[in-house]
Amino acid sequence: MENEVLKTVKGTKDFMPQEQMQRNWIRRTLEAVFETYCCKPLETPMLQHYELLASKYGGGDEILKEVYRLSDQGDRELGLRYDLTVPLTKVVGMNPEMRMPFKRYEIGKVFRDGPVKTGRLREFIQCDVDIVGTTSVLAEAELLSMAFEAFKRLGLDVYIEVNNRKLLSGVLQELGVPVERAGDVMLSLDKLEKIGVDGVRDDLRERNVEEPLVLAITSFLQEGVITLDLLAERFTSQLVQEGIRELRDMLAYVKGAGVGGELRFSPFLARGLGIYTGIVYEIFLQDGSMTSSIGSGGRYDQIIGRLLDDGREYPAVGISFGLDVILAALVNRNTEEQKAADVLVIPLGTEASSLGLANRLRESGIRVELELTGRRLKKALDYANKEGFAFALIYGENEVNSGQVVVRDMREGTEQSVPLELVGKWLSDKLSG
Amino acid sequence: MENEVLKTVKGTKDFMPQEQMQRNWIRRTLEAVFETYCCKPLETPMLQHYELLASKYGGGDEILKEVYRLSDQGDRELGLRYDLTVPLTKVVGMNPEMRMPFKRYEIGKVFRDGPVKTGRLREFIQCDVDIVGTTSVLAEAELLSMAFEAFKRLGLDVYIEVNNRKLLSGVLQELGVPVERAGDVMLSLDKLEKIGVDGVRDDLRERNVEEPLVLAITSFLQEGVITLDLLAERFTSQLVQEGIRELRDMLAYVKGAGVGGELRFSPFLARGLGIYTGIVYEIFLQDGSMTSSIGSGGRYDQIIGRLLDDGREYPAVGISFGLDVILAALVNRNTEEQKAADVLVIPLGTEASSLGLANRLRESGIRVELELTGRRLKKALDYANKEGFAFALIYGENEVNSGQVVVRDMREGTEQSVPLELVGKWLSDKLSG
Repeated sequence: MENEVLKTVKGTKDFMPQEQMQRNWIRRTLEAVFETYCCKPLETPMLQHYELLASKYGGGDEILKEVYRLSDQGDRELGLRYDLTVPLTKVVGMNPEMRMPFKRYEIGKVFRDGPVKTGRLREFIQCDVDIVGTTSVLAEAELLSMAFEAFKRLGLDVYIEVNNRKLLSGVLQELGVPVERAGDVMLSLDKLEKIGVDGVRDDLRERNVEEPLVLAITSFLQEGVITLDLLAERFTSQLVQEGIRELRDMLAYVKGAGVGGELRFSPFLARGLGIYTGIVYEIFLQDGSMTSSIGSGGRYDQIIGRLLDDGREYPAVGISFGLDVILAALVNRNTEEQKAADVLVIPLGTEASSLGLANRLRESGIRVELELTGRRLKKALDYANKEGFAFALIYGENEVNSGQVVVRDMREGTEQSVPLELVGKWLSDKLSG
Repeated sequence: MENEVLKTVKGTKDFMPQEQMQRNWIRRTLEAVFETYCCKPLETPMLQHYELLASKYGGGDEILKEVYRLSDQGDRELGLRYDLTVPLTKVVGMNPEMRMPFKRYEIGKVFRDGPVKTGRLREFIQCDVDIVGTTSVLAEAELLSMAFEAFKRLGLDVYIEVNNRKLLSGVLQELGVPVERAGDVMLSLDKLEKIGVDGVRDDLRERNVEEPLVLAITSFLQEGVITLDLLAERFTSQLVQEGIRELRDMLAYVKGAGVGGELRFSPFLARGLGIYTGIVYEIFLQDGSMTSSIGSGGRYDQIIGRLLDDGREYPAVGISFGLDVILAALVNRNTEEQKAADVLVIPLGTEASSLGLANRLRESGIRVELELTGRRLKKALDYANKEGFAFALIYGENEVNSGQVVVRDMREGTEQSVPLELVGKWLSDKLSG
């Protein structure tokens, strides 16, 4: 088949039924968890004014390069949203009467015209929960408790790395890192686990960090395992102490949450430079089968206020899950939704009665496909086999007249007649058994 | 608050939680019905090559004017999809090994840069089910049976108007309408119910239809109620007879489906000119509270083949529901999802224990919000009241120590102590009662 028009746009993908069933299951699982936490759904448009997307915001110039721009018939300059936070900010700003805290979730497409890698598309689904309007780290604790619960239901064993930007900034200050070099040093330290102390030393030098500072930092790294207790003793600034207090409170709250799940203090976790102001976190698989994180977030107390510029404060904290990262993590694991369809009803000249039979079964919650093409019985059974149906019901004139249905067990290859009025219960029992 | 950046793009809308909860309920209800019919989910990208959107297809030039165009960093010419059928066609064309019939549903955003009216947005959600690969009108019967079931679950009483394009074309042929005038005449006749026979006469004249033809058509309209039986007797061409046979088969199948619901034969229903080749249908509310249709579709046997141009035939039939039209139809009706949140847990210096309490209740399926701002009890109760919580749980040090929770019934204004280990069951009983 040659057809030049049939191309999928670079960075996009058709999700075929097998995958899409699993994505639907992930989405519904997340929604159910979000809703037991009383997070409320919000749906914002994908089309936004370019001016809003480009306005002063933590995303910065980097992300602007990746915005798909377009205009409408009225020559408005528009863009496709690149995240769900900017549209949330707009909603908060346009609804000043909104009761706080505002806990909302949104699951929707975002668009980034950036590099395409494995598992990284230009059009992808984000699942975000944000709480606007409270400074209490109980909010962070709720989000992490919710994340543990969500991944438990998804059947994924995860741990969450946590840190506090206040603590990290305070430590760097006390080590003598000037504010204007803090960003560079954070980016170096973020790689510690991957490249070790020697690697960090080289990396700092490459960034032209002054030698005495390199020495101060690396010798600190060599003091041993960096725990909260160690930092609390060694660093005394208010910023460090506040960061530690927030983390300890949050750890105690999550412990009280009783959801299980492992939190790991990760003293150099930074999560980018522009956005976060307090606690940050990143979620990983325990089995290490994926090295990238499958969720992340943190507190960003200044972003919304900076954008709205209305003199009010909008403390906020959020968490974001990537639907397709979760999908990738679930590959080769069985989920409920992956099971094959239930029943194929095959009419043999009995279309009207067969549709009636199919509908009676559907009412008991059985997923029923009606054979629609009028193909011969052998071909229809062949189809049932290939599509993985558990049962095929053969329904001809004789069966209609005698009030019976021939039920074929596709796995066993056996057939038996079942009275019409019993077949629903019979199938339900077999399918749930 | 003055902020010029905070504008919603014309033709788009933020769906706030109250509405969005209802939309989610509609979406989930439709998905559940689609899945009991073994329709499989597909998710296609919103970004498509402009060339595909512009290729020869029933949509025609009219719809192309409404396509949002854009390009990516690789200078590819792209467009936002304006329906879900073109992307489906692409998937069918790119997967020649696909087993037929292919029954898929897709619920997703489509974009049309056209006139904005009440209830008509430029970015809106379509819910489509299509069956590709069978010519049997049993497929139409399944879709209509499914539509009746879906609206029953949504609590909307509907009827469905049906017609067959073969029948309509055949009748016009026998009345002497030349093929090249058939389109104009169909558009006139489609308005019969609204403007009456006199109106149709004027409309035909305005379209410069020749006077003998106007006479033939209007005198036919005056013969009385046009039933299938009347047409079967009066018109003898093969096309008419085939159209009638298909309709009668389908009506018998839907009757056999046992879902109830009223089908009305509507002899001049055409559903646009370019796409449909057989049976067409349109769904309306019985109570007439909305005059526009809340769903529609029909058979389009040539569209996919024309686009793919691979020498194969792709008979297809579909049905489409507008999520926000259904939302509008449901306004002022109570749905399950509209009920207020269940429980607000108010910690009084007991954050960790309160998060634990909240999570225990969530595990029994109760929707629990945890008060996160540390505000005083009176203010927290005020919030619970305004947000419509059924119960507030007050949990202070005394309660933690004595293993009790103070439960406040927000409607009654009464309070009582309930032992911690019983409060989940106690609340579940009250909330379900």
